[in-house]
Amino acid sequence: MNGNSFGQVFRITTFGESHGRAVGVTIDGCPAGLAITTAFVQAELNRRRTGQSHVTTPRQEKDRVEIISGLFEGETTGMPVTMMVWNEDADSSKYERIRELYRPGHADYTYLAKYGRRDHRGGGRSSARETIGRVAAGAVAKALLAREGITITGYTVQVGDVIAREYDPTVIERNIVRAADLEASERMIAVIEAAKSAGDSVGSTVAVRADGVPPGLGEPVFDKLDADIAKGMMSVPATKAFEIGDGFAVVDRRGSDNNDPFVMDETGTVRTTTNHAGGILGGISTGEPIIVRVAIKPPSSITKEQMTIDRAGNPQPISVEGRHDPCLAPRAVPVLEAMLALVLADHLLRQRLSRVAWEH
Amino acid sequence: MNGNSFGQVFRITTFGESHGRAVGVTIDGCPAGLAITTAFVQAELNRRRTGQSHVTTPRQEKDRVEIISGLFEGETTGMPVTMMVWNEDADSSKYERIRELYRPGHADYTYLAKYGRRDHRGGGRSSARETIGRVAAGAVAKALLAREGITITGYTVQVGDVIAREYDPTVIERNIVRAADLEASERMIAVIEAAKSAGDSVGSTVAVRADGVPPGLGEPVFDKLDADIAKGMMSVPATKAFEIGDGFAVVDRRGSDNNDPFVMDETGTVRTTTNHAGGILGGISTGEPIIVRVAIKPPSSITKEQMTIDRAGNPQPISVEGRHDPCLAPRAVPVLEAMLALVLADHLLRQRLSRVAWEH
Amino acid sequence: MNGNSFGQVFRITTFGESHGRAVGVTIDGCPAGLAITTAFVQAELNRRRTGQSHVTTPRQEKDRVEIISGLFEGETTGMPVTMMVWNEDADSSKYERIRELYRPGHADYTYLAKYGRRDHRGGGRSSARETIGRVAAGAVAKALLAREGITITGYTVQVGDVIAREYDPTVIERNIVRAADLEASERMIAVIEAAKSAGDSVGSTVAVRADGVPPGLGEPVFDKLDADIAKGMMSVPATKAFEIGDGFAVVDRRGSDNNDPFVMDETGTVRTTTNHAGGILGGISTGEPIIVRVAIKPPSSITKEQMTIDRAGNPQPISVEGRHDPCLAPRAVPVLEAMLALVLADHLLRQRLSRVAWEH
Amino acid sequence: MNGNSFGQVFRITTFGESHGRAVGVTIDGCPAGLAITTAFVQAELNRRRTGQSHVTTPRQEKDRVEIISGLFEGETTGMPVTMMVWNEDADSSKYERIRELYRPGHADYTYLAKYGRRDHRGGGRSSARETIGRVAAGAVAKALLAREGITITGYTVQVGDVIAREYDPTVIERNIVRAADLEASERMIAVIEAAKSAGDSVGSTVAVRADGVPPGLGEPVFDKLDADIAKGMMSVPATKAFEIGDGFAVVDRRGSDNNDPFVMDETGTVRTTTNHAGGILGGISTGEPIIVRVAIKPPSSITKEQMTIDRAGNPQPISVEGRHDPCLAPRAVPVLEAMLALVLADHLLRQRLSRVAWEH
Repeated sequence: MNGNSFGQVFRITTFGESHGRAVGVTIDGCPAGLAITTAFVQAELNRRRTGQSHVTTPRQEKDRVEIISGLFEGETTGMPVTMMVWNEDADSSKYERIRELYRPGHADYTYLAKYGRRDHRGGGRSSARETIGRVAAGAVAKALLAREGITITGYTVQVGDVIAREYDPTVIERNIVRAADLEASERMIAVIEAAKSAGDSVGSTVAVRADGVPPGLGEPVFDKLDADIAKGMMSVPATKAFEIGDGFAVVDRRGSDNNDPFVMDETGTVRTTTNHAGGILGGISTGEPIIVRVAIKPPSSITKEQMTIDRAGNPQPISVEGRHDPCLAPRAVPVLEAMLALVLADHLLRQRLSRVAWEH
Repeated sequence: MNGNSFGQVFRITTFGESHGRAVGVTIDGCPAGLAITTAFVQAELNRRRTGQSHVTTPRQEKDRVEIISGLFEGETTGMPVTMMVWNEDADSSKYERIRELYRPGHADYTYLAKYGRRDHRGGGRSSARETIGRVAAGAVAKALLAREGITITGYTVQVGDVIAREYDPTVIERNIVRAADLEASERMIAVIEAAKSAGDSVGSTVAVRADGVPPGLGEPVFDKLDADIAKGMMSVPATKAFEIGDGFAVVDRRGSDNNDPFVMDETGTVRTTTNHAGGILGGISTGEPIIVRVAIKPPSSITKEQMTIDRAGNPQPISVEGRHDPCLAPRAVPVLEAMLALVLADHLLRQRLSRVAWEH
Repeated sequence: MNGNSFGQVFRITTFGESHGRAVGVTIDGCPAGLAITTAFVQAELNRRRTGQSHVTTPRQEKDRVEIISGLFEGETTGMPVTMMVWNEDADSSKYERIRELYRPGHADYTYLAKYGRRDHRGGGRSSARETIGRVAAGAVAKALLAREGITITGYTVQVGDVIAREYDPTVIERNIVRAADLEASERMIAVIEAAKSAGDSVGSTVAVRADGVPPGLGEPVFDKLDADIAKGMMSVPATKAFEIGDGFAVVDRRGSDNNDPFVMDETGTVRTTTNHAGGILGGISTGEPIIVRVAIKPPSSITKEQMTIDRAGNPQPISVEGRHDPCLAPRAVPVLEAMLALVLADHLLRQRLSRVAWEH
Repeated sequence: MNGNSFGQVFRITTFGESHGRAVGVTIDGCPAGLAITTAFVQAELNRRRTGQSHVTTPRQEKDRVEIISGLFEGETTGMPVTMMVWNEDADSSKYERIRELYRPGHADYTYLAKYGRRDHRGGGRSSARETIGRVAAGAVAKALLAREGITITGYTVQVGDVIAREYDPTVIERNIVRAADLEASERMIAVIEAAKSAGDSVGSTVAVRADGVPPGLGEPVFDKLDADIAKGMMSVPATKAFEIGDGFAVVDRRGSDNNDPFVMDETGTVRTTTNHAGGILGGISTGEPIIVRVAIKPPSSITKEQMTIDRAGNPQPISVEGRHDPCLAPRAVPVLEAMLALVLADHLLRQRLSRVAWEH
């Protein structure tokens, strides 16, 4: 009821605070027989960890994952899969200053309003370290999806006013902002560097797509596939907007332009000649690629001085020191990929429940 | 597991098909002691019913609601509240033509892919008539919220290329597109009329805001208030994008511009001097107005001829006859209001669980 | 959250009060393609309705079921199946006397303690009429189970001090107490008649068994098959105890006598030579018959005068008039069968989620 | 969906296998502001650990609990509380022999039937070590209940044919079988010693009661307080039967004897003069003590030789070596207490949702 779980069948629960003992996740609902290795999960975590480049925070956290339960001889057993990352010795003393301050754009005030207290050290539970559990579980989800030929690809499509125009998936992991457009990536980096130099931060947009999704995933009414994806994406810290397919662009369009015509291809597969819908109709996948975009705000932690108040209501200047990301997109890519993977894994399994006689 | 329920505590389940016996909703989790009348629920349903004006479908459905259970002497008892609207004699024969056709932009193909069958009559379960249950339950949610001083207001902010610039809530119910900007409403109407004349349809954007929300509503991680609102909105048929606060506009902005500074007002209330965040930080309400926007595609049902295929894969021309809405915003306003009300009612109750000693 | 739903995948929600408009049920999670007829559901309801014989209440309620949604051309569509029984004109005036009295053994006081109000007419929501929805949904569950060769059989095994010694399923529906032992049934009837003549009531025990359950149903830890069955049974009004297999008899027994030895039969099927366990080990079905017993208290509504208090605390004599069952077993049999069917249908579907590659 | 979670609001998820890295539990839904210490949780775990006396298994497991998350300065924060116990170096080699054998009374065969594989080492997930997480979470639940004046007491009432006749709670922790009857405890010990000497085991019954429960806890229909308690109890390994109040004894009783008369005591509190019902009417607590009894089978692991089969179906003699409990009651007492505490904590919080205006 406190909302630390996500998914209905492939259901995860994350736990842990930034400066507590550890952060982790339990997957309840991973079917038996899935081959998983620690190295595979670690590789995903390495994509989100700090200190990757000069456009991410220079903090150096190794984030070594340990699989606690649910595996036997290299495969899942159907039992809960718990994975943990121990927090390295964090210096909570530097957070002492902000113990009584409401950092602008942060959840300090809202946690206090809700709970009457908060663990202020490193942001406590509202720290982005919580997403470690999502990425670890997302790795397992990706392994499940891979068995069905489904792949997930995330990439940065906008930083500040720089918009990527190309989609070349081979270059995504070859530039430090994870754009699918090498030329744009350089300009994105320049925008981030400029913000960073000013003690400031900058916003960004990330796209995530799923290829190979079979038709028929998603439930018709409230648990529409796009509704669940929207929730997953908007549950990631700092996200402010979500689009599927052409998103807001459909507003200034007529139905005759926006409808995707159905055809049957030479293999007898039903396809649409365009994909304005982004791969989902009526909440259920069509078989076309699922494509979504997520807007991410400029990080709230900036060294540039701002005004705020303390708990007593006194105005106070604040400069959020520490080492923070000047732009979230590069490290958000694996997190948003994980969320799409988790939703698809959940609905892939739920699809087995849709007919009296089920065939794989 | 089939996704016909929404909410955790104030939980609704809708049921019924377009041409079946009835459509309805059961609320499980409405607390005892809430005064409800049939007239109050009916008034909300009247705002979404067909035939309101020449920019909505000319079908005339009375949509008379009947409260089946859960009330005693005018108040809720804590038991399930079931409400139903009987379907009037629908002529299913005109749907016979499309029994084997995949209407572009509709869920015909995806339902078949998922279930191996579908009730094609009037769109079956994927018909917008399903939203009757949402609006009826939303009325009850609004009554619960009203006790706490929370109000919900929806309005059309864009139709085609016409963008409203004013926010005057007093005019919303005084123009047939439900814009909060009378001048823009006239141009919106013209855009809809033009699309309709062409046998076509047009897209739109609706904003919904909640005023009077206390700080502290929402859960920190997956059930963030904005994540749940996003899911609710994106579960409404034809929605394609979602923004909270400044939404996509934050991408091209720096943190120092985007952070909302905290102040304490003369009453000792913590406020922010701007509200770029849209009333939510870290998934929890700040006390500022919650403001979201939702993009709605141009309706897929158009009389203009399109190409599609039948179930056997043969190309077929299709002109979707019947009387359909040329633009969804006017009738979507009460539906999207209902979704925001449902999410807030759910989290208003869940907030009671957050502390060991709870005070109202 | 108000607990009107049961099951995880094959999930039902019941609604309605004794003297409200109707009682009913919605099944969310019935897969598509199950053939269902109103007559089939009605037949199950006829087994639980009033006025069947002189050992049940003489009230005459027809309990005609109406299927509102979820069927198309005789088969389920995967959409919610809502079924309703309209309440016939009930005379609430005779309940006016007990409006302020706490009937001993009834929930009058506890509902007031919880909700601060109650619908006293005919017992409101705590009326046994609520079980109509369970039986209707149970009929659908039985249809699903029948496809897999699973059958459910309930029968009365004890009334007062009369204990059945035989198990002849062919006689169950041929005696008015639904015993599987004709000789015992006559003595059971005599015990009920004696209680009834004294203006009193008598307790009973019902057994329910499932034959044809494949091995592998149930989840290992909290959702053990026996744990879910226990909950289902103990959620039926007036139940006070539950046993699976040999139940309390195992207490005075040694492990070497209680363990069921495994063998492989001539068809290569793993069997146990005894079935003390009642068909479940570690929460998962073994393939042997599942057998449970449920103790039902003597009905609390008796005409014999008792002492109680009114809402103000004043002592008051009470004689619960109206026409009530002197013993619950005969009409409880179909209700308890329904609960076992609902649990098995739920776990039959959940079993599809247990392995990466699922074969039927 | 795999059933490793329990509770709706105060919701726990356990994880871990007998010979894996650790066993543990996450509580999601513990409200903020509850004072908890590791020592308090440890004290409960010490009551269930092995090696307590010569009537329990002589294995020596320290079961040191570590609180991983959810506490700040000694109080809960509203975030997930994860607690873990590391498994000490277990010798899995001795389980190699039974890798392909179906131990009678164990879940070896049923896990294989369900998942197609199993972690056979030390019983894997079906090991009683899983209950460590229940007891740790139950300690937190007890702390929450204690704030409301609710106490939980478990005790052994029967071992073999020895039935306790007294209820003296002060002696429970002063005898190694945890009986509330010192005289009977000695005879119980003798029965266990006799079984143990024979390489065999013996069954038992445990009672658990809750004192100080206010009226109004529990939901009326499926989530009746007794139904949820029954599920909790029957989810504990080796349980075979459940009674509330007088249980099976009500069968041979008339309503006039079984109904508990209401009175108002001198403090204005509604009471019943008897408590045949066991503290619950219509699924909701009355304010009287809640009393339940649970039958526990003789442990299946016995050194006495039995016959079984291996995975290929070949008959095989088996003598389950290792050090096992000859009777489960002594160590089951804290586990069953934990389950009652968990159900009550869940419903104590859910009660806050029952009325529009809630007062503590």
